[in-house]
Amino acid sequence: MVRAIYAIIGDPIGQARSPEVFNARFAQHGIDAVMVPLEVPSRGLAIVLDGLRATRNFGGAVITVPHKIAVAEFAQEKSTRVRIAGAANVLKPTARGWSADLFDGTGFVAGLAAQGFPVKQRSVAIVGAGGAGLAIAAALLEAGAGSIGLSDRDPQKTASAIARLSENYPERASARLPGPSDTLVVNATPTGMALDDPLPVDLDRLHPQAIIAEAIMKPAVTRLLAEASRRGHPTLEGRHMLDGQIEAIWTFFADSDCANLTSIGCS
Amino acid sequence: MVRAIYAIIGDPIGQARSPEVFNARFAQHGIDAVMVPLEVPSRGLAIVLDGLRATRNFGGAVITVPHKIAVAEFAQEKSTRVRIAGAANVLKPTARGWSADLFDGTGFVAGLAAQGFPVKQRSVAIVGAGGAGLAIAAALLEAGAGSIGLSDRDPQKTASAIARLSENYPERASARLPGPSDTLVVNATPTGMALDDPLPVDLDRLHPQAIIAEAIMKPAVTRLLAEASRRGHPTLEGRHMLDGQIEAIWTFFADSDCANLTSIGCS
Repeated sequence: MVRAIYAIIGDPIGQARSPEVFNARFAQHGIDAVMVPLEVPSRGLAIVLDGLRATRNFGGAVITVPHKIAVAEFAQEKSTRVRIAGAANVLKPTARGWSADLFDGTGFVAGLAAQGFPVKQRSVAIVGAGGAGLAIAAALLEAGAGSIGLSDRDPQKTASAIARLSENYPERASARLPGPSDTLVVNATPTGMALDDPLPVDLDRLHPQAIIAEAIMKPAVTRLLAEASRRGHPTLEGRHMLDGQIEAIWTFFADSDCANLTSIGCS
Repeated sequence: MVRAIYAIIGDPIGQARSPEVFNARFAQHGIDAVMVPLEVPSRGLAIVLDGLRATRNFGGAVITVPHKIAVAEFAQEKSTRVRIAGAANVLKPTARGWSADLFDGTGFVAGLAAQGFPVKQRSVAIVGAGGAGLAIAAALLEAGAGSIGLSDRDPQKTASAIARLSENYPERASARLPGPSDTLVVNATPTGMALDDPLPVDLDRLHPQAIIAEAIMKPAVTRLLAEASRRGHPTLEGRHMLDGQIEAIWTFFADSDCANLTSIGCS
């Protein structure tokens, strides 16, 4: 059999940790496969995906910035998560074309669970209704969160996110700022990436035991997390969102129709 | 910087040794690069090459059966070897498109040299005037062989090969069978791949010290080589043709314009 090829596609891609993580897993499981980084500018994405589709031993790809929205449009088969968020971060070839899924939100929920924080019936507030906020909201609702309050500097974004969520989870998402009834508050805005950014959330208004979570990866500990910790809140760093989705991506790749490749799930 | 991606493209590709050889070299030289096998059917070749061209960290590819002729047509920049043989076995992206070269013949000559057999002024007979025979003939002439006699079951193939060679090396190639004046006789036909194949060369007609060489890889020792050895001829196995071109391919990849990739030669 031929070694199976997996990719992570983005621009830039030098920082991506996925090849390291997945290649270690392939080795651990004795699977003859390799994940390689492909640095692909937006204008080349369709061409590169066509090329990978024509490669018989291509197993699938992790998709990162700036291609998450474009690949969702490419795929013939999309999970509910992809349809709600209009974005995808994994892609695999199937008999009919491409299958896409989005595990950023799932990863967030798994990261919460791994830290001992269940989701069921929880009241959650998410600040930021862009791609990350929407993915996290959808995954939290799928995992059984009771209600989600969304807010964004752009009220149209908030309204559009709530409309998308409500199609699948009626009456569980609404437009509101984080408040004392929320036991989980998520920052899904980029505010906090720069060290002198203002706090994206007013901590004075929150329940003192509310979990404060970040979608920002760098810095690992944002001003929001540092300040929340100081006040005694449990916190969750952005990296848990990534760590939490590795298992889901592995399963996504393994669940292949094996029609034309040696993949994780085919031997 | 991003890990550079190299490929070997063919169909089938499971047997290819190049990834093993080049990945060991990358590691040895501390180069963050990887060569992966891509199994690509003929109908997908153009699509895959377009995709690789659109991938910023793609460094180049080794090309094998059945794509050697097709890639020669793809390339904008071709070595004399490629133009003569109408085939290529390496490809790299350049500012203008693709650059192609053919090292099968060069590899054969390097393999000869590594075994202590110089080429200069030698009279050579090659049996088989297809792609392999033509590549070997062109490389031997380039390396200074005095004259080359070509023969093929198909006289049109012989005539066409001689015409191609004579454009670049006038009056040094002619149509004739191996004879007592030849000090190197090469089998570039597939005759000998099956164990019960007849001998492709009449050993009775040859000089007793003539080197007998194979382009066939499997079996490592063909009936021709076994019989020649028994009679006291020095011999050269087909694998030396592959081993002999690794250095040339490495140099081809390293000599990159580095415009848009982290390659062997760019850091």
